[in-house]
Amino acid sequence: MTEPFGERLARVFSRRGRLCVGIDPHASLLEEWGLPDSAAGAREFGLRVVDAAAGGAGIVKPQIAFFERHGSAGYAALEQVLEAARAAELLVIADAKRGDLGTSVDAYGEAWLTPGSPLEADAMTAVAYQGLGSLDGVLERAERFGKGVFVLAATSNPEGLPTQAAIRADGRTVAAGVVADVAERNRASGSGASGSRSSGGGATASFGVVVGATVVLAELGLDRASFAGMPVLAPGFGYQGARGAELRELLSAAAQNVVVSASRSILADGPRGLGAAIDEHAREVAACLV
Amino acid sequence: MTEPFGERLARVFSRRGRLCVGIDPHASLLEEWGLPDSAAGAREFGLRVVDAAAGGAGIVKPQIAFFERHGSAGYAALEQVLEAARAAELLVIADAKRGDLGTSVDAYGEAWLTPGSPLEADAMTAVAYQGLGSLDGVLERAERFGKGVFVLAATSNPEGLPTQAAIRADGRTVAAGVVADVAERNRASGSGASGSRSSGGGATASFGVVVGATVVLAELGLDRASFAGMPVLAPGFGYQGARGAELRELLSAAAQNVVVSASRSILADGPRGLGAAIDEHAREVAACLV
Repeated sequence: MTEPFGERLARVFSRRGRLCVGIDPHASLLEEWGLPDSAAGAREFGLRVVDAAAGGAGIVKPQIAFFERHGSAGYAALEQVLEAARAAELLVIADAKRGDLGTSVDAYGEAWLTPGSPLEADAMTAVAYQGLGSLDGVLERAERFGKGVFVLAATSNPEGLPTQAAIRADGRTVAAGVVADVAERNRASGSGASGSRSSGGGATASFGVVVGATVVLAELGLDRASFAGMPVLAPGFGYQGARGAELRELLSAAAQNVVVSASRSILADGPRGLGAAIDEHAREVAACLV
Repeated sequence: MTEPFGERLARVFSRRGRLCVGIDPHASLLEEWGLPDSAAGAREFGLRVVDAAAGGAGIVKPQIAFFERHGSAGYAALEQVLEAARAAELLVIADAKRGDLGTSVDAYGEAWLTPGSPLEADAMTAVAYQGLGSLDGVLERAERFGKGVFVLAATSNPEGLPTQAAIRADGRTVAAGVVADVAERNRASGSGASGSRSSGGGATASFGVVVGATVVLAELGLDRASFAGMPVLAPGFGYQGARGAELRELLSAAAQNVVVSASRSILADGPRGLGAAIDEHAREVAACLV
């Protein structure tokens, strides 16, 4: 039987920690690294991050937009980076933020979560503007193949607040509604046909949410109970002042299930400083958990 | 100076009508068409739709998910389809539903809305779960290059309602908030540095919204005034019973600016019936406007 994503994630946590290293081949970073602003540059950048991450972290998160910039050649580069990450036994979260309806959203799930697909990852990020139910095809595929899905819930940018703090008919904010819907989905799948206890109960579930590292949870009607058992992908560590104190609220709320993602603060140190930056971040994340 | 997207769209409307033909190389459609379920099949499918659309419509809308399914090879196929559509002088709306923050969302804009990019389209669809402000980089790029952006506002699937009908602090529903924010952005750009009256005032603006053809506007606090001057992309014509009567509400509300998109109901007739199906749909759409 395929091992659920949540179990694999929990194992990575205990063996290699919570740090997730972003793979963001942004034009200005490529320049700082002395690489061309091209698909080949993005590939080289990605391969170097994978190499360095394999030494000091267990999870990587390629930002798909920075590959899509280069069209099909960028996707071919991404395929090689994904292959290298699999070979290095890193857990890969494709930061694609896809969302749509029906057969269209199914096709996104097929691209990212199907074993053998050229873009295969261990998990993907998704957007549920059309409701968590609109992602059903993706969630079902994820269960079948032991993959994970992180649904965008609460982000740290101020322009996101009017939407994410809007009140649904059930009294929840939109952000808290996403979290509650994902929790409900995890419970359903824990008792469902797949029979995997770890998708639902006390262990780490396979469906989680994205919550910005600096989000003030109370502003969005979120608290510690909201995230029980659910993996939380928290981008923004080491950026916008999320290091240390601010991250602690989220770490405390989401207990043992936060994936702490850092991109710019690691990548800005350049290719030579990469290993040291990853080690330093990994130590800092571990210290936050004490 | 680059001609704004809204002006180009208005010209297509008056010369070739409102019908937008979806390019959805779904696995089951590829099979029905006798094409392989591969990137080559998707390319062939797309090229045939472009050919047929050039005869009877002015706008095409490739659904990106069905190309992404095939990884980089699928994107290479899409690039050829986009090139053929440009050569046929069709207006192309890339149905990508991208959304993110900062440099990531900028990179999506770069991919789809930059002249000379391998994935260049005339407009793209976007998602503003993180607020319309999160799309600023995309909107600015669109203005600079005369491109359009359609932001997902209201969709016809029932699971979308809890989020889209949630009430923001300003009293608007999330869906009506997106529409109001886009209208405000069109006004700002009409009076702004770009100086193009057509981005704002009475003519067709360059930023619009996606509203499902069967959406009940009042349920989401939307009415005729909401859409003044703004292009509205309405997918779902000819599907889920949106033909005729139900579309009239939207057509009446959005006056002369609705892009009526049909996919399955045209494509299901197979490659041989394509030209006739497009003509029939074009006539039906024109009749709705009387």
